[in-house]
Formats: sequence, structure tokens, C-alpha cells
Amino acid sequence: MRTVSWSDDQVVLIDQTRLPHQTEYIRTRSVQRLAEAIRVMEVRGAPAIGVTAAYAMALAALQSSSNDPQQQLAALERARELLAQTRPTATNLFWALNHMMEFAREPVSDGATPLGERMLEEAHRMADEDVAINQRLAEIGAELIPDGANVSTHCNCGPLCAVDLGTAMAPVIYAHQQGKSIHVFTDETRPRLQGAKLNAWELANAGVPYTLITDNTAAYLMQQGKIDLVMIGVDRVTANGDTAAKIGVYGLAVLAHHHRIPFYAVSPLSTIDMSLATGSDIAVEQRDPDEVRKVNDTLITMPDANVLNYAFDVTPSTLITAIVTEVGIVRPPYRKSLAEVFDGRGIPG
Amino acid sequence: MRTVSWSDDQVVLIDQTRLPHQTEYIRTRSVQRLAEAIRVMEVRGAPAIGVTAAYAMALAALQSSSNDPQQQLAALERARELLAQTRPTATNLFWALNHMMEFAREPVSDGATPLGERMLEEAHRMADEDVAINQRLAEIGAELIPDGANVSTHCNCGPLCAVDLGTAMAPVIYAHQQGKSIHVFTDETRPRLQGAKLNAWELANAGVPYTLITDNTAAYLMQQGKIDLVMIGVDRVTANGDTAAKIGVYGLAVLAHHHRIPFYAVSPLSTIDMSLATGSDIAVEQRDPDEVRKVNDTLITMPDANVLNYAFDVTPSTLITAIVTEVGIVRPPYRKSLAEVFDGRGIPG
Repeated sequence: MRTVSWSDDQVVLIDQTRLPHQTEYIRTRSVQRLAEAIRVMEVRGAPAIGVTAAYAMALAALQSSSNDPQQQLAALERARELLAQTRPTATNLFWALNHMMEFAREPVSDGATPLGERMLEEAHRMADEDVAINQRLAEIGAELIPDGANVSTHCNCGPLCAVDLGTAMAPVIYAHQQGKSIHVFTDETRPRLQGAKLNAWELANAGVPYTLITDNTAAYLMQQGKIDLVMIGVDRVTANGDTAAKIGVYGLAVLAHHHRIPFYAVSPLSTIDMSLATGSDIAVEQRDPDEVRKVNDTLITMPDANVLNYAFDVTPSTLITAIVTEVGIVRPPYRKSLAEVFDGRGIPG
Repeated sequence: MRTVSWSDDQVVLIDQTRLPHQTEYIRTRSVQRLAEAIRVMEVRGAPAIGVTAAYAMALAALQSSSNDPQQQLAALERARELLAQTRPTATNLFWALNHMMEFAREPVSDGATPLGERMLEEAHRMADEDVAINQRLAEIGAELIPDGANVSTHCNCGPLCAVDLGTAMAPVIYAHQQGKSIHVFTDETRPRLQGAKLNAWELANAGVPYTLITDNTAAYLMQQGKIDLVMIGVDRVTANGDTAAKIGVYGLAVLAHHHRIPFYAVSPLSTIDMSLATGSDIAVEQRDPDEVRKVNDTLITMPDANVLNYAFDVTPSTLITAIVTEVGIVRPPYRKSLAEVFDGRGIPG
């Protein structure tokens, strides 16, 4: 079962806020409901958000009462605006929204299939493409994972974060399937505990040996030589290789650097934003303080405690050993190597 | 109200597992109940544990049915054994237990006050001494906190961790009382959330401006220049200055080092164990995996998730800018400066 799919004329999402205790699905044709699902992180992970947004745009077109192209585009613009407000740091969200707007604007011959149906086909194509890209990330990233490796990771970047295989955990699960002996230390990832709730569950499901640790523990394990490499998923990579990812990734990168442990970012090309020069151009989203004040609706501090709740941090490219993409492993200097990838010249030899 | 006190012939403890939502007290004359309180961390923090153990030993003597000194000592040995098993990494616990055993073995003149009463007086003296030591830590440590400082801290080392003023937060609260403009970033400190539950509550009570952050956030704040110094309480310091403290402190020390931010440990002399040469001699306690699997009795992962739950980590002395003690600020090289303190020559000029 894919994380995001289409069935009986509805978008079907696994409700990730219920895992690992309950496996429930959200089935909807409502653009508003899908925007809400992205906002409250019932669906999360860069690729999964992108495909969900594409389906939402297709639904907006399908539900447009007008046959007038200008009115249809106006309806799509309203949907785009609603969806864009949900997760301001998620590149794939904007990438998907822009792509669907461009798709809608493309001229078609008279008598072509109606816009809504064509956009739905396009959303299906994006979902399939995501699965294929994740398979490539898995195969390419697994080259970096030696037999016997202890891998440290943060947040959830496995199957649940994408349509199917995921990003950072795809190489790990693939290496395990190749018969390598792999063990993963997965951080719990406060405040939303995606590591404890989702990553541990996915690794257990995939049969990969894992140990759940608090976010405080990775440094001590590195000090003891118990971590061989760090592999993380990302939310946005800039043209120089600076990387926005789940809050805590920057600290993990500094710790890996201090302990001379390789630090790998796994990023589909759609997550790389060549329009931003460096990480300082990235707006870092602050989320509801109650995410920190509460765990599963239970207060862990005073109800009015002063809280700062950043969703992301930014890791400078100097701390990133390599970036795994679907077209190959990209290495520093990133400004040059990423430019060559996007110029179509491929991975520099 | 002190964290640990004696009233109506009973030990009175604030039940720290109920804070910040309820202020409840444990009143008991039972050695077993006090051992349980230390084990489940109803009382925690190195100095508070030490004084609680001293009262427990006094109660064991008071309740000894025998007047025979050998039988009294045997009863005390049993109490010592019970209490020693509660928190194997807590130096002050062993320091207090050994001190009370030595006190009990001291020869006295005929007709002296009974042992139990004398031990109770000694426990009172230790409690008063702790308050006086904490006052000195406050005054001396405050010298390291400039006006306008943003201080980062981890776990709870304020009034609740000691009999009254605390260790790492004593200088901060004192600096605030001196009229300095101080702001504290307090980590929530998974898995037991002492920062969210206790430190934020204490700082709010003391009127010190604070912000609660997840343990993942300090690195990002350091990167942005928003943290001027780190001040932490410790659980054991060895002769070379290596320091065992709450899990997460080592990572914070590496991060402070990377960002060239001063990192201060606040440690009463009773927490410095000159019998251990280096941090590698420290046994690091592992605690119940359910502390990670659950938050406030609510599961956050699978009930059988594989978990590693270290209570402490060990920070090498090379990452510690200075150690604040009640006799002054100790600076590297610690092997030399700590030896001089314990040889009675005081702080090297």
C-alpha cells in the first residue's frame, strides 16, 4: 500500500499521526482537507507532500464548475494559494504546485481530454515517477553503506515520507535486502517524534535491526565508535549544497564532523532548489509551541511555558560528505557539481 | 520550602515526578520508601540525592532495635546496600552513604547521645552545608555570566536538584537577582524531561526569562549566535576533569566547542571523585527502556521497540572551559588544578 494513492475517485493517505498504534486512512476529494492533512502532518516527508499537493491540484481542476480556461486557472490559483500556506519550508510542495500550474497552462489542441482528467493523469505520473526515483536513491545510496555498518539517522525518511520507498531509509533497507548486515540507530526526533513513531516502525516492518535512541544519545554513541555513518533525508538543498532538514540534523552534522564520521544527505533532484544560492536564503518555519509543550496531547510543562519550536535547521555544505541523488552521488565542491547535474552534464567523474 | 527536609520526625520530599502540574510531598520514615524515591527519581539531582540518603541512613539507625554497636552497624550496612543500588552513577549518593558509615563508626564517649540521634543531627548538618555550598556556587558562578547573556542549559540543576539553591541554575538565578539581564534556553532533556518539567518551572518561579527548546534546537541557536555560554550541572567529575552528566551534555559540549562558546560545569567538591583518574573509569548507568518508549505513561512507539537508554554521558575535560566549585573557579589543566584544590592549597592563582 502506497503512502499516497488514488482509489475510488479519492485521494487515500495513511494517517501518519495515528502510527504506530493504528493504521488508519484518510479518503477525501476535498482540496481543503488535503491542505489540512499537509499542515497537521497527517502526510509528511518531502516527496509525499509533493504528490499529495499534485493530487489536490488535480481535484481542484476536476471540481471547477467552469469550462472557461481562465476561470479554471483562477480556481487552480486559489487552490495553489491554500496549499502553499501549509508548510512554508517544503520545497517539493512548491515544486509540485508550480509544476501543476505550468501543466494547466500548457496549450492543448481542440477536443483534448478535459483539464481535470489530464491533471489527474499527471499526478499519477508524478507518483509513479517518485517510486522510480526512490528505487534509484536506494540502489545508489546503498553503495555508501558497507557490510556491518551502524547507520545513524534522524526523523523519518523511509517509505512513509515518500509515495513508496522513501529517501534516507531507502538505501538502508535496500542494503539490508542485498544481504548486508546493517544496524540503524534512529533518533526519536522531538518534538513530533517521527523517529520513534514512524522510522522505528518502518525499520521493524522491513526487518532491519534498529535501536531507538533519544536525540541526546547520538553524540555518546559516536564518542564510543558505535556509529559508522549518518544518513539523513532533507527538505531543501541550495545551489551550494547547504541543506535544510528536520531540526536536529545540523547538530548531528557537527557531531559527525567532530568524530570524523561520514555524513550523507539523500535528496531527489526535486528537493534541490538551484534558485537559492545558499542556506541563508532559506526561510525556517516556526511551528506551534504546543508541539513542544505537549506529547500526544499530554502537557509536559506549564501550559503557558515560553517555547521556540523551529521545524528545520540549515546544515552548511562543508559538513556534508556527499549528497545521494537519483542520478548519482554528488560530492563537493557542490556549487560546481550540482550545477553540472542540472546543466544535464550529469555527475562529474 | 526545601526540596529535602525533616518535619514531624519524617523526611519530607517534593515529589518531582508530579511537577509542574501538582506540588505534592512524600512524608516517610521508611528507608525502603526513600530508596524507592531515589530510584524512580521522585527525588533527583546529585546534592538532593546525597542528603536524602543521609536522612535514610539516620532513619536506619533510629529504627535499629538493638543497642549493640555491631548490630547497629550491620543494620546500617544493610541500609547502605539497599540505597547504593538505586542510582549507580550518582557520586553524591556514595559520598553520603560512606560519610554516614564513617560517622557511625567514630568512637564516642560513654553516655553520648544515641547513634540514631547523632546521625540525624549529622544529616541536618549536611543539608545546611549543602545550602551554604550552593550559595557559594551561585556567587562564584555568577562572575562568569555577563550582563545580557543568553545561557544554554540541560536537565535540571536548580533548587529542586539540591536542598535549596541548586548548582548550575544557582549562578543564573543569582545573576538575575543581581540585576543582570539574563535569558536562559533550557533543553527539555529527554527522556525524563527534567528541563521541560522542572527547570522551566523553576526559572519561571524565579522570574528569570527563559525559553524551552527541544534537545535538537541548541545547535541551531548556537549557529545563529544566540547562545553566549553553556552552564550545566554534573553527576561526577574525575581527577582529570572529565565529567559525567545527564545524557546529552557531551553533545552540547561538542557543539559549544565547534561554535567557540564557553562551556561551564558547576560542581560542588562532593561531586568530584579524585579516586577516578579519567572519565573512562565511570560506569554509565542504563535505565529502563520504557522511559524512552513512553512519555507520561503514553506509548510513543511500539511497546516492544528496541531501545538504548543511557542515563549519562561523559564529557572529556578538553571541552570544559572551567569548573565552578564552592571554593572558586577551577581552570585547565584540571589534573593539576583539582589536585591543588583537594590538597588544600586552594584555587591556583
